[in-house]
Amino acid sequence: MAYELYYWDGIPGRGEFVRLALEYARADYVDVARMNGGTEQLLALMKGENANVVPFAPPFLKDGEILVSHVANILLYLGSRLGLAPESEIERLTANGLQLTITDFVAEVHDCHHPIGTSLYYEEQKDEAKRRSETFVAERLPKFLGYFEKVLAHNPKSDHAVGSSFSYIDLSLFHLVEGLRYAFPQAMEGDGARYQRLIALHDRVSQLPTISAYLGSERRLAFNQSGIFRHYPELDVLNRP
Amino acid sequence: MAYELYYWDGIPGRGEFVRLALEYARADYVDVARMNGGTEQLLALMKGENANVVPFAPPFLKDGEILVSHVANILLYLGSRLGLAPESEIERLTANGLQLTITDFVAEVHDCHHPIGTSLYYEEQKDEAKRRSETFVAERLPKFLGYFEKVLAHNPKSDHAVGSSFSYIDLSLFHLVEGLRYAFPQAMEGDGARYQRLIALHDRVSQLPTISAYLGSERRLAFNQSGIFRHYPELDVLNRP
Repeated sequence: MAYELYYWDGIPGRGEFVRLALEYARADYVDVARMNGGTEQLLALMKGENANVVPFAPPFLKDGEILVSHVANILLYLGSRLGLAPESEIERLTANGLQLTITDFVAEVHDCHHPIGTSLYYEEQKDEAKRRSETFVAERLPKFLGYFEKVLAHNPKSDHAVGSSFSYIDLSLFHLVEGLRYAFPQAMEGDGARYQRLIALHDRVSQLPTISAYLGSERRLAFNQSGIFRHYPELDVLNRP
Repeated sequence: MAYELYYWDGIPGRGEFVRLALEYARADYVDVARMNGGTEQLLALMKGENANVVPFAPPFLKDGEILVSHVANILLYLGSRLGLAPESEIERLTANGLQLTITDFVAEVHDCHHPIGTSLYYEEQKDEAKRRSETFVAERLPKFLGYFEKVLAHNPKSDHAVGSSFSYIDLSLFHLVEGLRYAFPQAMEGDGARYQRLIALHDRVSQLPTISAYLGSERRLAFNQSGIFRHYPELDVLNRP
């Protein structure tokens, strides 16, 4: 039976981290909200109408009777099934910890354009967004990217994020770089020199056959002004010495 | 060998979710940063000096050679070892999803007093904090607490959060209520009427023998103005119809 991915239609958003894992493995899956009537199915599940589990928010994944919510939890579940998890328990815990750091980082990226409230429009919090983005670009962005660079440097086994083989963390780091380059092109300029291992990993992932085919397909949604990674030139402040 | 919990000294913070699980189970553990030289040990691990894994931030847990970071990941690891996880894989995934919703909620609570940047003092972002807290109290607080109430109502097996037995999610929900009552006493007034199942669960947890003993001990740190849950009267706006 096909995996069912539930995520808002029209944006890559948090769902993209899951899509990349499914696409990498050529898994049989349905992107439910992009089908006719799919958004209604998504909303019904959020009301707890069709499962014992009530998810708080998309994305969530259905695998038969099993419903799994939150990106990191979905990737933990899919990782071993799609050949994208490290083999040992210790390395799986390490991978999960890294995905949770990515989760935190993504929330901070989102809050650059929504520092006051998700229910308000960007235009209602532009001043605060500018102030938040200044500290983000000056401090948080280099802190997180420097951290992932260090994680890659620290792995004695390979040039992947965890252990000796490719995992869903490598895919997530790829997407993180993609999103940041879209949202903060000025701040990310020259990233290849500052974060050599991370950008090299990004480049290798983009050339993997299944990922390269996916990126060129209609299934890959473009970044836009409604997702996590948004490009507002006024928030993309330079951060170079 | 004793578990080693690494978290900043002096605040309950995110470390408290882990402490509660260890205390509930009377596990043998050391709260490292509260020992002599402990903070130096914590900082050394964050530099990647003593382990293959480099944690991004506290809390993290060491169990011999295993280092696990992030609250939800630590509780996933400890859950089965301390008898605090559901038995089936499906219910463990459900528990992990709930803990990740709690994680997101805790981040939103933190950002009520730090909406612009963690590196700035509260006093440098008071205006933005007030505006963010208004939407938090009016929208996010009832949304999250209503969600947890619904999860409890939706469980056909017991009055616990997941499945038929007590789990670390019940402990985390207890602490969430504790923290919110400290930070937002006005907004939480009358919570027992609005969130009956959640508050009843909170009250039951507080009376468990090991938890009750812990709450009365010196090991339980009081909430204060340096942690996640802070009480600033100007942010505690009323939210009643």
